[in-house]
Amino acid sequence: MNTMTAIWKTEPKQGFEIKDAQIPKIKDDEVLIKVKATSICGTDLHIYNWDAWSASRIGKNLPYIFGHEVSGEVVEVGKDAKGVSIGDHVSAETHIACNYCYQCRTGNSHICENVEILGVDRNGTFAEYLSLPARNAWVNDKSIPHHIATAQEPLGNAVHTVFNGEIAAKTVAIFGMGPIGVCGVRLCKLAGAEKVIAVDMNETRLKFAKDFGADVIINGSAEGVDVRKEIMDATNGAGADVFLEMAGSPGAMQDGLATLRPGGRASILGVFSKPFEIDVTNDIVFKGIQLNGVNGRKMFDSWYKSKSFLPKMNLEKLVTHKFKLTEIEKGFDVLLNHDGMKVVLEP
Amino acid sequence: MNTMTAIWKTEPKQGFEIKDAQIPKIKDDEVLIKVKATSICGTDLHIYNWDAWSASRIGKNLPYIFGHEVSGEVVEVGKDAKGVSIGDHVSAETHIACNYCYQCRTGNSHICENVEILGVDRNGTFAEYLSLPARNAWVNDKSIPHHIATAQEPLGNAVHTVFNGEIAAKTVAIFGMGPIGVCGVRLCKLAGAEKVIAVDMNETRLKFAKDFGADVIINGSAEGVDVRKEIMDATNGAGADVFLEMAGSPGAMQDGLATLRPGGRASILGVFSKPFEIDVTNDIVFKGIQLNGVNGRKMFDSWYKSKSFLPKMNLEKLVTHKFKLTEIEKGFDVLLNHDGMKVVLEP
Amino acid sequence: MNTMTAIWKTEPKQGFEIKDAQIPKIKDDEVLIKVKATSICGTDLHIYNWDAWSASRIGKNLPYIFGHEVSGEVVEVGKDAKGVSIGDHVSAETHIACNYCYQCRTGNSHICENVEILGVDRNGTFAEYLSLPARNAWVNDKSIPHHIATAQEPLGNAVHTVFNGEIAAKTVAIFGMGPIGVCGVRLCKLAGAEKVIAVDMNETRLKFAKDFGADVIINGSAEGVDVRKEIMDATNGAGADVFLEMAGSPGAMQDGLATLRPGGRASILGVFSKPFEIDVTNDIVFKGIQLNGVNGRKMFDSWYKSKSFLPKMNLEKLVTHKFKLTEIEKGFDVLLNHDGMKVVLEP
Amino acid sequence: MNTMTAIWKTEPKQGFEIKDAQIPKIKDDEVLIKVKATSICGTDLHIYNWDAWSASRIGKNLPYIFGHEVSGEVVEVGKDAKGVSIGDHVSAETHIACNYCYQCRTGNSHICENVEILGVDRNGTFAEYLSLPARNAWVNDKSIPHHIATAQEPLGNAVHTVFNGEIAAKTVAIFGMGPIGVCGVRLCKLAGAEKVIAVDMNETRLKFAKDFGADVIINGSAEGVDVRKEIMDATNGAGADVFLEMAGSPGAMQDGLATLRPGGRASILGVFSKPFEIDVTNDIVFKGIQLNGVNGRKMFDSWYKSKSFLPKMNLEKLVTHKFKLTEIEKGFDVLLNHDGMKVVLEP
Repeated sequence: MNTMTAIWKTEPKQGFEIKDAQIPKIKDDEVLIKVKATSICGTDLHIYNWDAWSASRIGKNLPYIFGHEVSGEVVEVGKDAKGVSIGDHVSAETHIACNYCYQCRTGNSHICENVEILGVDRNGTFAEYLSLPARNAWVNDKSIPHHIATAQEPLGNAVHTVFNGEIAAKTVAIFGMGPIGVCGVRLCKLAGAEKVIAVDMNETRLKFAKDFGADVIINGSAEGVDVRKEIMDATNGAGADVFLEMAGSPGAMQDGLATLRPGGRASILGVFSKPFEIDVTNDIVFKGIQLNGVNGRKMFDSWYKSKSFLPKMNLEKLVTHKFKLTEIEKGFDVLLNHDGMKVVLEP
Repeated sequence: MNTMTAIWKTEPKQGFEIKDAQIPKIKDDEVLIKVKATSICGTDLHIYNWDAWSASRIGKNLPYIFGHEVSGEVVEVGKDAKGVSIGDHVSAETHIACNYCYQCRTGNSHICENVEILGVDRNGTFAEYLSLPARNAWVNDKSIPHHIATAQEPLGNAVHTVFNGEIAAKTVAIFGMGPIGVCGVRLCKLAGAEKVIAVDMNETRLKFAKDFGADVIINGSAEGVDVRKEIMDATNGAGADVFLEMAGSPGAMQDGLATLRPGGRASILGVFSKPFEIDVTNDIVFKGIQLNGVNGRKMFDSWYKSKSFLPKMNLEKLVTHKFKLTEIEKGFDVLLNHDGMKVVLEP
Repeated sequence: MNTMTAIWKTEPKQGFEIKDAQIPKIKDDEVLIKVKATSICGTDLHIYNWDAWSASRIGKNLPYIFGHEVSGEVVEVGKDAKGVSIGDHVSAETHIACNYCYQCRTGNSHICENVEILGVDRNGTFAEYLSLPARNAWVNDKSIPHHIATAQEPLGNAVHTVFNGEIAAKTVAIFGMGPIGVCGVRLCKLAGAEKVIAVDMNETRLKFAKDFGADVIINGSAEGVDVRKEIMDATNGAGADVFLEMAGSPGAMQDGLATLRPGGRASILGVFSKPFEIDVTNDIVFKGIQLNGVNGRKMFDSWYKSKSFLPKMNLEKLVTHKFKLTEIEKGFDVLLNHDGMKVVLEP
Repeated sequence: MNTMTAIWKTEPKQGFEIKDAQIPKIKDDEVLIKVKATSICGTDLHIYNWDAWSASRIGKNLPYIFGHEVSGEVVEVGKDAKGVSIGDHVSAETHIACNYCYQCRTGNSHICENVEILGVDRNGTFAEYLSLPARNAWVNDKSIPHHIATAQEPLGNAVHTVFNGEIAAKTVAIFGMGPIGVCGVRLCKLAGAEKVIAVDMNETRLKFAKDFGADVIINGSAEGVDVRKEIMDATNGAGADVFLEMAGSPGAMQDGLATLRPGGRASILGVFSKPFEIDVTNDIVFKGIQLNGVNGRKMFDSWYKSKSFLPKMNLEKLVTHKFKLTEIEKGFDVLLNHDGMKVVLEP
């Protein structure tokens, strides 16, 4: 039998379809991965809901298999594939870079001009098998359970954002306590941050932040809470040294910039649904800050760092739900109801 | 006689007053400077016009003497003043830093938390004499004419902005061809930029840009001109490697970010009158750019660099008008009518 | 009475003299500090022994009071002194920078061209009182005991060396487990290093390294131990990402460079008694490493970082001996016999 | 006919052999290049002379075709080769990186742990045809003559060394005025260096340095010349801000470090025949300098920068001799007699 179960996006509307697919044939520089665990990312929710972004970005690809966070076992290796062997446990760097554009040739593959994204531009991980360029297969230590290893891709986003500048001895304000934000909190503490201030609107997520090491948590939706005042108070009126935007919220961006100290660093990973107002003069120019856009993971520096921090991360706690791959609807429900952090699916 | 002629801001309204002042008495760590040349900066126009910024920032200081760009001769040296002697020709670093705040103690005096600005927070340079902390007196080579040396302060802004990141071999788009922008053009060329694209709405200023070395000039106000398209064309569709905002215009900021290549650097010196919309997702996050706010001059790295480039700058051409100090009204007229670049006043 | 007890270096030979001194009179920008604790540094041993370096560097200063590590209380404040008040607990940044040379004016006061060093070029801390420029007085939290706060100066050296480049997720080989080396070990662990390898010839010091968090300890004097092989084994044959030289030993330098991975960082704080051979081609050029000389503490970035890490350092354990100031001979004995780590003296 | 003329190293002794070879068959990711110009590098002289380095590094590869500087035309393209087309004019990045080691995966392919070097580890450019991985083929503008384009590889070394840190407004001392050193001089001037001091022992080479823009030339072999004193004088006693070692001489290294100012940058490209003494304490540690080993070219950042500077370099002047490929013996003679700078061979 050459077929497998897969989760397809077939129609340009909310939902998905479970149906068989051919097991992928690999190219000479690819590997075939048997999926052991795959997890649901915010992007997958957008695709499930088929919002404006999905329609414009993915419309032309239908029907296709989505999903991109994964841990699996290599079962076949192309003849030109280097650095990975049959039996290896691997995760996927989801940005498949072209390797010949200016960005790729100057160490910036994470912003490749011809990038192809797994589960977006080509068939993804919500399936029993997956083909992947060998270069994008990240070999994990076999001691790491698959349901943890699949969460390494968002950890990589957090790593890229946190280590985009100095962290040791710094006060850090992080907005957005989804899985990436919570990983950010813990990374900052493990890397010697002086104080980590976590901001969100959801009490449950803030509890995760606390568990992962936040020194101060601020619930921006709580009555009478003035986020800016809380941050200034927590930093003795100086403002934070570092601001990490992981919420994708204009209010978070504005509050974070307003409470960043002169000379501070802002690293922005969040994706905002549309343009919004920024007080460039007072929040950026006069304060002489550095503001960095953060996209994906730095290949493969973010992965090497993730590998080092993974055993200390306690990701087990982040995996709030596990389902069979074919029960994926339950996973979407959990996340759409804000009842969980990371949902893992097992074929 | 202990009095001198000075240009005072006495009333919270448009205009100024010419009247005598006491020649300043210096403190132990200060020097007394006989003004040989002083020049009019955009900030002085705001103060002359007494706009909202002036009212809120300076209202409490009236009456006081304004002006801050200067070249003069040291005529008295306080007993604790080091590094400067009577007879030295000096310019003024206008940001008088406290030297004990966090920023000052970590090499970032240009964003001192207690900064006092010459001609804003204390008596300035539109006068025959000036007191200044010795630390803020920059000794010039005596071969530099005073009317050139006074233009070194805005050159320093350009230096700080241009050298805020790599320039050699880069394509650079600069918006705003006032004296700072034009200095920026020339600095980029002198430092090995591949191509410099100058953008402004004023044809005369763009001619200066051309004279100072711009490879491409774009008049954003010309009929049928699409600034973004022009920049993309001039960079073979790649976008500029570096974007320098020296216009203080939301449109410039938006165009500059939209045409910055992924991984590029944006350095923002311009001051914007109010918050405005930015497409953070597409122009900053997805492109993984670095955006730096630039304030003042890096003390004193910007001055050392300015000293090195000054002989190659051709600033003579930028000084379009010279008047007696008491004819200052003529200077304001010239600038308000956009008839000149740098106006120098001589007591 | 205006006199105090002090430890003098009066003669150009081994030893010292205990005799009264005038309590210092402070200048306008200085503070008077009542010494609560002072500690003995390696430099003090050189001065005690009056070796070649001491003779050439200090000969002209005799007689004078030595010592430079200190914690005390401010009892008098000059009229121009800013940022410090009577009653403050302070330590001393021992490099008294000129504030007007090129280095001082560009954020590099730690390599000031006209530096005056406390206890070397001017009277030091082995006394009941001490005068110090206010700018060099670092205000400590009063919760920190004086015998701990005095050890902050060497901690600052460790901070400067460790944070001279990236540390998080890196493997680090540190040579020399004196108080600075041991602080380096702990800092690396607190800042998220992947693995810290500590090398010394003294088993007691290596036990301190272990206590302070070293993952691997290597005794270079133990029979059959090949330091290079041990480091390569501990790094899976890759070599260390970072090499910190805190031993001042040519062998350490050579071993450290030989086992540094291509692209690695070497930060050298150790002082070597004379020039020695380095395999520049193989250890530096072909590997494309970065090698940084480290002098003093980065003013005052190293102090801010030290302040943040101090509560987590466990310095209490490093203070192996406490004596009365007048019992200083006992302190020298302990250190010359390699029986202790940090010796604190209390007036 | 499937054969071509080639220059072989067949025996482990001085010399070479001219004889036919098979025209290479390319792999799927390779291109076949028809050599239009190839030039002789210092490495080729070592191989010609068969010194100790050659014996140990290359002995196992005999017989093989040497040479690595090249410009040619692509005549065949493998099916997986991207970014290059038949008819393209190309040069070769000579370091063929593995693309999967730690260095390659973190943007440092120039220090690839499994590097294969063209003309050293595999057949090179002293032939009519050459196979090369497409990734290593650098497409040149067709307006550049082949005899100029072949000199781009050493220009890349100069670019990597010069732009290893700040250059604008800096005083730079460069030791070694071979083709790379002379390119370094010109690059520094084009990038806004304040002053370039060129040092060599050969008057002819120093004339090239002067022609390429050196402000000061120092002949270290001239009677009565004290190189260190000359550099200190040329820098007003401050020492150079930047020191570039392109001579591979211990004396140059020692002089360069001794005359580097505190806080300065040393970038070392030279290859030294054996270990030698360095005064680490005084020249590196106390001065707090940064010393960088430089290997190859930064892929492909150095190439992009080379492309930008190439039209301004005047490389035409550096090509002192042109011969037919089969006259290569004449080329070696010229270089062994120090009669030329760059010798170009045309098949």
